[in-house]
Amino acid sequence: MAKTSKPARRHRRSGLAKPARSIICGWHSALAALQNPERVIHAVYATANAANRLAEAGLVPSGLEIRDNRDIDRLAGEGAVHQGLAVDCDPLPDRDLAGIEGAGLIVVLDQVTDPHNVGAILRSAAAFGAGALVMTARHGPEDTGVLAKAASGGLEHVPVIRVANLARALEQIADFGFLRVGLDSEHDESIESIGDAASLALVLGAEGKGLRRLTKEKCDRLVRLDMPGPIASLNVSNAAAIALYALTRRR
Amino acid sequence: MAKTSKPARRHRRSGLAKPARSIICGWHSALAALQNPERVIHAVYATANAANRLAEAGLVPSGLEIRDNRDIDRLAGEGAVHQGLAVDCDPLPDRDLAGIEGAGLIVVLDQVTDPHNVGAILRSAAAFGAGALVMTARHGPEDTGVLAKAASGGLEHVPVIRVANLARALEQIADFGFLRVGLDSEHDESIESIGDAASLALVLGAEGKGLRRLTKEKCDRLVRLDMPGPIASLNVSNAAAIALYALTRRR
Repeated sequence: MAKTSKPARRHRRSGLAKPARSIICGWHSALAALQNPERVIHAVYATANAANRLAEAGLVPSGLEIRDNRDIDRLAGEGAVHQGLAVDCDPLPDRDLAGIEGAGLIVVLDQVTDPHNVGAILRSAAAFGAGALVMTARHGPEDTGVLAKAASGGLEHVPVIRVANLARALEQIADFGFLRVGLDSEHDESIESIGDAASLALVLGAEGKGLRRLTKEKCDRLVRLDMPGPIASLNVSNAAAIALYALTRRR
Repeated sequence: MAKTSKPARRHRRSGLAKPARSIICGWHSALAALQNPERVIHAVYATANAANRLAEAGLVPSGLEIRDNRDIDRLAGEGAVHQGLAVDCDPLPDRDLAGIEGAGLIVVLDQVTDPHNVGAILRSAAAFGAGALVMTARHGPEDTGVLAKAASGGLEHVPVIRVANLARALEQIADFGFLRVGLDSEHDESIESIGDAASLALVLGAEGKGLRRLTKEKCDRLVRLDMPGPIASLNVSNAAAIALYALTRRR
């Protein structure tokens, strides 16, 4: 069960700015947040129905407040599908790159900014057992409710590591023994040609821009996905999903 | 080049309600719409920059109006990324199921409603050369600008066929010689076991709900995607992308 301590005070004491709080809504995402021992939870807003479902799942979180649907609409933000459940919590603590050691597969994002896409990638990363998602601290999305919702619980399973300098991080990733595989539509080598490396780092760039030059230089292999149709580009989260599938299917 | 005739008059004459018009924005989606001879275009709104890019691409569409960025913001709707280009057009004409005959691969959606997801699926369908996207007329998304934008041009390449009764449509799809492959996480057969059928229909249900009972009954095979991680479900467009990749990679 998640913590319900007082992080605001802790942050004041440490002299750090208090991080922006997240509202995580939607059944899967909110439930996963409640079940994550690393989450600092401030409040849980649920409709009577959702609270019953929580109780059935064995969860009666402290800080639970029963609200009507319209209250949760307001909390969740316009148009958000919250399914009667919203969790007010702190972002997860920052992770260090050293944590990737020993993972079989990690995902690295080069300036992918859309939180829907990053969330969906995190969800797929969790589905395919990736050990971490590494991304740039700048030009990356915040750990927002949108990202958490799109990740459908993935944010609680796959550590997100923000790095100041991606090229340097890719060097460290190599030092940890990872084969760095960049997805780049301009290369002729198929992703199918990647064999059984013990540790793989899948490196993806933003739609349109692709991988930056320096990012490409830090990849050991640059591969493309085979697409026979009239459009030769995919949504970045779809490309990530296919690449994760292709890299894990022979394991 | 797309048509610039007067569809409103045609619809009044036929006694049919005039279909809601779409604003298709974003460079790839709008350009693909302008290049689609079946699109009836009412107006094209472009910034001076975007108009120059169009001219460089050999396109000076009739109905072009130069607008400033904020005007296009308003036309495109809040938060839409339009890249200086918006096309005001009619939805594409309705297609008949008979048009799928001879296609190697089609995609069938059972009550997938989110236009972002349907758009992304259409984009992947175009990337993998699918001949059509079949979906229910009810409980499906409208041919809106959101769908067109997410499809990034895919809407102009893959005919969308709306059917009143999906179970009956699946019977007709079998009559056309398609092997109907339903994605269903509760089945043990892997999608990898699907061999070389001449014509494949990939059938996908909505997230959470999955395929309806009657839809499942009309599938020849029910298969799952192998996912080794702690989350066993994917965003539907990501599942579709992986399935399209898995079904086309040995062709």
